[in-house]
Order: sequence, then C-alpha cells, then structure tokens
Amino acid sequence: MSILVSFSIFPTDTQESKSVYVSKVIERIRESGLPYKLTPMSTIVETESLEEALAVLAQSYEVLEPFSNRVYLNATFDIRKNKSGRLAGKIQSVENKIGKVNT
Amino acid sequence: MSILVSFSIFPTDTQESKSVYVSKVIERIRESGLPYKLTPMSTIVETESLEEALAVLAQSYEVLEPFSNRVYLNATFDIRKNKSGRLAGKIQSVENKIGKVNT
Amino acid sequence: MSILVSFSIFPTDTQESKSVYVSKVIERIRESGLPYKLTPMSTIVETESLEEALAVLAQSYEVLEPFSNRVYLNATFDIRKNKSGRLAGKIQSVENKIGKVNT
Amino acid sequence: MSILVSFSIFPTDTQESKSVYVSKVIERIRESGLPYKLTPMSTIVETESLEEALAVLAQSYEVLEPFSNRVYLNATFDIRKNKSGRLAGKIQSVENKIGKVNT
Repeated sequence: MSILVSFSIFPTDTQESKSVYVSKVIERIRESGLPYKLTPMSTIVETESLEEALAVLAQSYEVLEPFSNRVYLNATFDIRKNKSGRLAGKIQSVENKIGKVNT
Repeated sequence: MSILVSFSIFPTDTQESKSVYVSKVIERIRESGLPYKLTPMSTIVETESLEEALAVLAQSYEVLEPFSNRVYLNATFDIRKNKSGRLAGKIQSVENKIGKVNT
Repeated sequence: MSILVSFSIFPTDTQESKSVYVSKVIERIRESGLPYKLTPMSTIVETESLEEALAVLAQSYEVLEPFSNRVYLNATFDIRKNKSGRLAGKIQSVENKIGKVNT
Repeated sequence: MSILVSFSIFPTDTQESKSVYVSKVIERIRESGLPYKLTPMSTIVETESLEEALAVLAQSYEVLEPFSNRVYLNATFDIRKNKSGRLAGKIQSVENKIGKVNT
C-alpha cells in the first residue's frame, strides 16, 4: 500500500513569514525518517498506511500548536493498494510518456 | 477546541456515480453522532480534537476500501482553540455583518 | 454544462476575523446574481461555463486585493457536461439513497 | 506580483492511468513557456498575474475536455504582491533556516 499525502499547514493568526513554520514542520518530518519532498506549495510524504499519513498531520499540528490559536491545514491523499515508491514513480510515469520535465 | 474538517473522498478507478460513495460515508458519519453538514461539494464535520477529526477520515476510507484500489481524499481543517459550535457559528458571523445569505 | 466551484479565499498577512473578508466576497457574489451557497468552510457557486467560474475567483480576489499583500485561495471544481441545477441536485441524489441528511 | 498556482486535474469518469492526462497537461504548459514544476501530487506554475494563472487552468481543462464528461480540478493559489521568482525562492527560504531539504 502506498499513501501519498500532500499538505500545507500554517497559523492564520500570526504575521510571521510562512517559511518559519514550514521549517519547523520539515524538521519534524526529517526526524521521522519518512520519505518526503518539499515543494514550493506543499510538503509531500509517502507512507505505507493511512494511519501513518494521518499521524504525520497530527505531529505537524503539534509542532505549530504552541505558536497559534488558529491553524489552517489542507491535505490531499492519493491512496493506492499494491504499490510503493510512488514519490519518484509518478513523475517517472509522466517522463516515460513525454520525456524530461521540470521537477 | 473546535476542529472543522471539510472533506471529499472518492474512488478514482470506478465509474459508479459519486453519490453512491458519498451516501456510504454519510451513513457512517450519522452513526458516529458527530455534528455534520453535507454540502454539494464536501462533507463538513465538527469535532473537539484533531485526533477525532483524523479518525473520521480513517473511517471514511474504511467504508470505501472494499470498493476500490485507488482512493482520492481532500481535506481542509480549520483548527481553533477556545471555541465551539462553529458549524452554525461561522455562518452566523457573516449574517451578522451582511444579513441573510443562501446556505 | 454545469460547473460547481467551492472556494475559500483569505489574506494571510492580516489578523482581522475571517468573517470580515467572507462577507465582502459574498456581497460581490450576491450582486452577480449567480446561484451560490455559503457553507462553514467555503462558498460554492454554480456557473454554466468554466470561464464564468474562473471570473468569480478573479472578482473575489479583486475584492480582497486592497486589504492585503498576500492572499491564499483554494478552489475545487466539479465540471460536468450535459447537466444543470446541481447545487440542489447533488444533495438530492444522496437523499434519494439514504433519506434526509443534515445540510 | 507573483502567483503560484498548484493544481491537479483529472477526469473522474474514465479508468485510464492518471499519468496519461498529466502528460497532456504538462505538454500544454511546456508550450506556454511559463515556469513550472511537476510534483508527485500536482503541477505548480508561476505567473505574473492572476488572470494568467486562471488561463492556465482553462487551457488545462481544454486539453482534457475531449476525453471526459466529468473533470475534477483542485487549485491552490498563493498570490503575493511585490515578489517574483518564488518557484525557487520559497524553498530557498526554508533551506536558509534548516539547511538542505529533499526537493
């Protein structure tokens, strides 16, 4: 099983630069050892169960909780049985069809 | 604490009408007794903890899991300390400013 | 053709209550005469072409532009040929299957 | 002005592999010459106006329109005045704080 979750999370009651909060969340994910990718608009993590993916969201909120009374979180999941390694594999499928793309 | 989670979840490998899957998910939420609202684009549930909100997503996937090998899930969370009753309260705040709106 | 667009838009560099901005956007949509629905998490508008739906987003940004240097906008579109009246119709399809639901 | 739009678009009434449709959309964006980035979960494009960003969505739908009666589109915009080059810049801001990250 492969779950890809792409999410962005930020306080909506502070005016601090967003990169401060993104940095804190990424540090927490790096510690977890899960495969991840930071993009300009979200963080993508791959897990082997939905529970693990949901735990990543809970941990990310824990990281921001001390700094804010109101947090916005958007998460998109692509949940697929009988697959793995999709963090690299999905882009590879596109490149197999149309050649090298910007990543 | 009040968590509002607005989510939509559907198989991407079946051609069945989406309302079949929405119906199954709503039946599960009705059983849970949590306050919810079905909209034309998503289901909104209010919980008192983030863990409860994440559990709603896990249960919704469980409902669809037998029918599909690939499921798409998008969820947006508005997480707020020191509040409650926001399923009705957020719309009320807008109506206090500009009068009756379509809901 | 029927386009349902569910969107939320807010400045991320102000600490003003969100309902202030939602109110401004809803007033603009009411003026347009398009069918809409305010939910606790987003505004849903139905249009007959994708261009019209995209114009709603552009107008909503115009309303907020004077108040902020940074605006976040999330929009989900359900684009369907050969249909109409889906703002009410999609919920009706669910109720036909499982009876009255909370809306 | 800098608009980052992260979007994913796919038919919901076909069972074709998603990479087929992603490939068609990316080919269209490559032709436009706009700076873009394909990620495992979405395509991110940077434009200098909101109108241009909305046009990218309209063109992407045009590409898929012949293949489907029902298309799902999710788009998140980060709209910021007085900035540019954020496709690279936002990740750089994070790396300035916590060092090299996976991208």
